[in-house]
Amino acid sequence: MTASLELFFDVVSPYSYLASTQVAALAARHGISVRWRPFFLGGVMKATGNQPPATLPARAPYLLRDVQRWAAKYGVPLQFPRRFPANTLLAQRMLTALQSDEVARLAPGFFALYWAEGGDVTDPDTLRGRADALGFDGGALLAAAAGDEVKDRLKATTDEAVRRGAFGAPTFFFDGEMYFGNDRLVLLEDALVASGAMS
Amino acid sequence: MTASLELFFDVVSPYSYLASTQVAALAARHGISVRWRPFFLGGVMKATGNQPPATLPARAPYLLRDVQRWAAKYGVPLQFPRRFPANTLLAQRMLTALQSDEVARLAPGFFALYWAEGGDVTDPDTLRGRADALGFDGGALLAAAAGDEVKDRLKATTDEAVRRGAFGAPTFFFDGEMYFGNDRLVLLEDALVASGAMS
Repeated sequence: MTASLELFFDVVSPYSYLASTQVAALAARHGISVRWRPFFLGGVMKATGNQPPATLPARAPYLLRDVQRWAAKYGVPLQFPRRFPANTLLAQRMLTALQSDEVARLAPGFFALYWAEGGDVTDPDTLRGRADALGFDGGALLAAAAGDEVKDRLKATTDEAVRRGAFGAPTFFFDGEMYFGNDRLVLLEDALVASGAMS
Repeated sequence: MTASLELFFDVVSPYSYLASTQVAALAARHGISVRWRPFFLGGVMKATGNQPPATLPARAPYLLRDVQRWAAKYGVPLQFPRRFPANTLLAQRMLTALQSDEVARLAPGFFALYWAEGGDVTDPDTLRGRADALGFDGGALLAAAAGDEVKDRLKATTDEAVRRGAFGAPTFFFDGEMYFGNDRLVLLEDALVASGAMS
């Protein structure tokens, strides 16, 4: 059985975006698979009482600088959205309608839309168009996202993350341990090395 | 003129401790000096409305794991204090009575006391003993810490940090840019490389 790394993420989260650009290469370096797990960050915040860092006025300008620094370090585009935070419930539900390997193909498209292209991540037509462009049936995903089965599954994933200790995004789990934040990829990689995941 | 890196810290802060164990080597790698600037984190929190991360119940157990992971990564001892947070006003005032190069010698002793040895960082006799052991006149430092000049200077340093954008600890400044947290040493080092500080 191949060891697996779980990534709980929400398209609304800048540090989820940043981490999402690195996780495939990280996993490949250690010969493990990534299980992409869309959850709803708003639900995590509500359940835990956590607040987004930019809520603190003194912290907001620093956050803008910080995400740009990480984007520069990673060599990925980043344009801070004019509308932030956005309600990503529909986007996360569309992702929830997919299998993990499909999420791995669509989530980067949604992230790019919101974090690099100034797109409206709340707009159904925009999301459908992006899904279509990446080879999915965007209309079918929108329909699935409106159904109770997908709504319940997204809620269950969010509840599961909270139950396992998550309080923000991105949150990784590997080998029974939780890692929170793009800035903990370095500790996660240490754990991958220590586990001898690549054998 | 040698380029300088400012480090605002408080002995109460676990991530200040962790960063403090790395900063001398970081600076040496790039041929710059470190200006150790003791401030009072409680004052920063009050001025900005920020809260320590462990305030959030869901986050507290993760924080304990996280600081141990960083300590293991750095190869430094860490024993989470039974009394946390502690009031470090006296310790920070004693450090404020010193010049930066002296702070660089005493602060590690206070950090070790609180973060590695289970010592009482609020106890005047303990602080005096540690200062004496490191070649300072602990009694004179305690006396200075009780004087208005040092009290005012610590308050001024704290106010300056807040005015420049700080909202927590450790906070670094280099080349007009602020970096917050032990986990941003990697971005700070990128900036040092880019600046060609080591020439």
